Formats: sequence, structure tokens, C-alpha cells
Amino acid sequence: MKVLLFHCDFIEYKPVKKEWKNAENVEIKTYRFEEILVAFTCIEEDDNEEKVEKMAREIKIASERIRIDRILIYPFAHLSNKLAKPETALKLISSLYEKLKNYFECYLAPFGYSKELHIKIKGHPLAEQLRVV
Amino acid sequence: MKVLLFHCDFIEYKPVKKEWKNAENVEIKTYRFEEILVAFTCIEEDDNEEKVEKMAREIKIASERIRIDRILIYPFAHLSNKLAKPETALKLISSLYEKLKNYFECYLAPFGYSKELHIKIKGHPLAEQLRVV
Repeated sequence: MKVLLFHCDFIEYKPVKKEWKNAENVEIKTYRFEEILVAFTCIEEDDNEEKVEKMAREIKIASERIRIDRILIYPFAHLSNKLAKPETALKLISSLYEKLKNYFECYLAPFGYSKELHIKIKGHPLAEQLRVV
Repeated sequence: MKVLLFHCDFIEYKPVKKEWKNAENVEIKTYRFEEILVAFTCIEEDDNEEKVEKMAREIKIASERIRIDRILIYPFAHLSNKLAKPETALKLISSLYEKLKNYFECYLAPFGYSKELHIKIKGHPLAEQLRVV
């Protein structure tokens, strides 16, 4: 399981096309969040609930270091070439979201869509971080 | 060696702070490119010239598929936790740049800096691609 954390001035995304037939329907519009930590989240083939628990802790620690309490989980398959099946990926991403919701103002971008992405990432040394569990 | 390819409406970056003491001096300003393929490039500990050659071919194929002939190589350490030493990484990234310059209008973002990053990625299904060699 890999998460790329970006501390952002803002992020905007717009779902464009359903890439997975079972993806839930979402409103096609531009979504925007400001002053937020974006967690680009990639679920790999051996991932499980235990790893989700570990990743939630990692993200919590990283968030506290940069003093931010707003998180957007952004499903992002392009961090690995050993991906989990979509059903598993969605289940574990949803579980990560539920865990982080206990600590943060937390949002979840739609799974299974290609999306336009517009993002402005801060320039401090901890603004971009990778976590692997 | 990992490369995350983003087909972009635009990218803007501004070097903020030298994170590696041997990084070359660059002008501190905002650099902007439009209608470009950005190759976020991460050199890992076992990488070598052969892998660079292979990655150059992969990028060439991907570029031709989306019909773009402008590329920005953007050094990006956050795709792996098994990084090469900075000296090696810089050498291999420069080599990738030299190879791609034979085929494309090619640019290279500075190595060894934290940078502010502002990017708008297109929404088509090939706009985001990972390559691993």
C-alpha cells in the first residue's frame, strides 16, 4: 500500500469518465478543497485491513507534523504495477477513510473514474511525502 | 527506476530551497510550461544506464500514443523508498534528458530542490501513467 501525501494550497478535480463499471455514480462537476493534505492512495495486491490500520497511523503522524487536520483521500492507481482488484481496493480505501474520519475532517474522491486534476502543492520540505506499508 | 507521466494543460514550479548541498544554483523564479508531458522521475538504488535507455524508449512510446512532443523531466524522489544516491540520480536523470532531447523538445527541472508545484492534468484515460523498469 502506497500513499503519496501532498500538502496543498488547493486541489480541484472533476470526474470525467467511469473506468470501472461498478464505480458508484457521482455528480459530474468540479470539486475544490483548500488548505488540505491530499493522500494519493494506491492499494496493492497483498494489502489488507492490518496495512490500512498501519497507514492510517502513518498519515496521522505526518498530518500532526505539518499541523493540518483536513484530509482528502484520492484513489490513485499510478503508484504501483501490482494493483489489488478494484473491489478490494475500494473496500480498503473506504476503510482508510472511515479510520481517518475519527481524527480529521476527511473527504474521499470517487474511485474508478478518470479525473481532471488541478493541484497546487506547497514548497516546504515536508509538503511531498511517500508512505509505504 | 520509476516515472509517473502526466499529460498536462500546464505546469508551474518554483525552486524554494536547496535540499542537496551539491545541487547547481538556479534562478529562483516560477517556471511555466503549457501542453506538455511531465515525467516525474525517480532513480532507485539499482538503476543504471541500461535502465535509462529502456525508460527513454517507454517514454517515447507513451508520448507517441498521446501525440505530444514536448517533455519536462521533473526529478521526483517520492515514488520509491529505495532511492539511489543523489550523485547517481542526477547523473542518470541527466542521461535520460540527453536521450529524450534527440526526439523531443525536452526540458529538465532542477535536481535537489524543494519546489512549489502547480499543475493541471488532463482527464483522458492516458493522461496519468506509471512506468517501471
